[in-house]
Amino acid sequence: MSKIRIGIVGYGNLGRGVVGAIAQNPDMELVAVFTRRDPSSLKIESANVPVYAVNDAEEFKDAIDVMILCGGSATDLPEQVPHFAQWFNTIDSFDTHAKIPAFFDAVNAVAEPANKVSIISVGWDPGLFSLNRLLGEAVLPIGNTYTFWGDGLSQGHSDAVRRIEGVKNAVQYTLPIEVAVNRVRNGENPELTTREKHARECFVVLEDGADAVNIEEQIKTMPNYFSDYNTTVNFISEDELATNHSGMPHGGFVIRSGESNAEHKQIMEFSLNLESNPYFTSSVLVAFARAAYKLNKAGDKGAKTVFDVPFGLLSPKSAAELRKELL
Amino acid sequence: MSKIRIGIVGYGNLGRGVVGAIAQNPDMELVAVFTRRDPSSLKIESANVPVYAVNDAEEFKDAIDVMILCGGSATDLPEQVPHFAQWFNTIDSFDTHAKIPAFFDAVNAVAEPANKVSIISVGWDPGLFSLNRLLGEAVLPIGNTYTFWGDGLSQGHSDAVRRIEGVKNAVQYTLPIEVAVNRVRNGENPELTTREKHARECFVVLEDGADAVNIEEQIKTMPNYFSDYNTTVNFISEDELATNHSGMPHGGFVIRSGESNAEHKQIMEFSLNLESNPYFTSSVLVAFARAAYKLNKAGDKGAKTVFDVPFGLLSPKSAAELRKELL
Repeated sequence: MSKIRIGIVGYGNLGRGVVGAIAQNPDMELVAVFTRRDPSSLKIESANVPVYAVNDAEEFKDAIDVMILCGGSATDLPEQVPHFAQWFNTIDSFDTHAKIPAFFDAVNAVAEPANKVSIISVGWDPGLFSLNRLLGEAVLPIGNTYTFWGDGLSQGHSDAVRRIEGVKNAVQYTLPIEVAVNRVRNGENPELTTREKHARECFVVLEDGADAVNIEEQIKTMPNYFSDYNTTVNFISEDELATNHSGMPHGGFVIRSGESNAEHKQIMEFSLNLESNPYFTSSVLVAFARAAYKLNKAGDKGAKTVFDVPFGLLSPKSAAELRKELL
Repeated sequence: MSKIRIGIVGYGNLGRGVVGAIAQNPDMELVAVFTRRDPSSLKIESANVPVYAVNDAEEFKDAIDVMILCGGSATDLPEQVPHFAQWFNTIDSFDTHAKIPAFFDAVNAVAEPANKVSIISVGWDPGLFSLNRLLGEAVLPIGNTYTFWGDGLSQGHSDAVRRIEGVKNAVQYTLPIEVAVNRVRNGENPELTTREKHARECFVVLEDGADAVNIEEQIKTMPNYFSDYNTTVNFISEDELATNHSGMPHGGFVIRSGESNAEHKQIMEFSLNLESNPYFTSSVLVAFARAAYKLNKAGDKGAKTVFDVPFGLLSPKSAAELRKELL
């Protein structure tokens, strides 16, 4: 059987993860990586795969089945996905929740007339968590849905701390508050404020002579990022940061607390505990690349989300094998 | 907008649950309940809905969109689902894992030429747990999947204990063993024997003069049901059984423990904590009834499983609403 031919656009943490994930899926092969950098400056450590300039991608329109776009949501993906959708089935991890409807329309306007499938906003949130939010309210229409994130490293919050004058380096962890989680798991259906759901913990390396008290105050009162949370600030050495805080763990849970009638509490929960956030996201992207390929082969086209994809298409197994082995 | 018109075949715990679940979904209406008993002997307590004999169902072929079959897997469903699939889209909870492929083929042979959709083996296991087993191995192909059941009442095991001479009444609970669950959640990927995964606990009411020691021994050594497990037997009064053991709680978890590459452990978990097993199953059946209706309206036909159904079809919301609110 011929393999599903994959291309990658963008080679950061996510692109690196996709290379690794493709190696775990024998029904797929990685054809090329495309970059905006000078292709000769980029070497793919873990795979023997050529690197090309993004501008050369059109030449591969008959050689690549699915292009996985690994850029950022702020500026890369809104421009790149509609561009590549004219030639390829695409997968992306666009995660700016408020802009998803407009992004979907922009991608669909290109993919549909091109007879290609573009599955947008794939990953774990948006992605697997979204699927569980939908499942929860579809199965238990009377109830509440709670999403908790963490324990996990937040890139955006870490960056915000690093921008403070006197901070040499920093990481920030988002922590779900256990007492709140337990109340939800017990079916209490609590109303929870932002502060009651998550706490924040920072590990900060100071520049020589920086004022720790002042920096701690600046962090804790920073609007949007920290002022609505209980925040702990720890000052540590550069060595300790490198040794203990260089990973990118994350995770969280989606809990639906409902009742199938007035007497019966029913709790559904989906949770992730990830040692590497970007590598897990990459694994999800690759599974959905398989689905994009199968949908398009069956004649489907246009922009899609995870809500439009039957799980059977995520697997390399046939429908008959799945019924026999996994149902 | 016109409502999705539902019929129910069979009025046990599951059928009762479906009546309650339909009442929670404003886009659906219950048209009729069909029974093999004398229809005049059956009163639907919670809804003002007529009861008919199963033999009258054909007359409703233009009045009911989806028939939810609430009989048992042993003898009812293998006969009823292919029969009703000639006139209606159907949903069932057929759960004899080994016979699913043959059941699928038998249903498909009727539903496809009839231009109807039959989603088979819907519920939580098979059903939502199956979806999570598939998702786990599709996203993390290198890893292990573990399914634990409980704490929950097992009907089959309770019946087995009740059949012992001298036992007046009994219930049996299946209990996941915490130390095993924690090893899996920690990413240890243990190999676990049957005995290491689950324990069994029985609450038994004896007939007057029955030999407790002998009965305990008979339970603990019963092949298939108990001999491979560590089993605790508690003798209690009929009153205590009625007071503390009349519910039908169940649940469990599907855990995928994988790695996105050699260095990163990634754990996915889906869990259910249910005060009523049959009522939750009913809620799942009703959500998939909506999907069967939508699939058929879009021109689809034939036998399907949960693996063939995009989650978006489970919801009463439009695709645009789902993208905006839940992605």
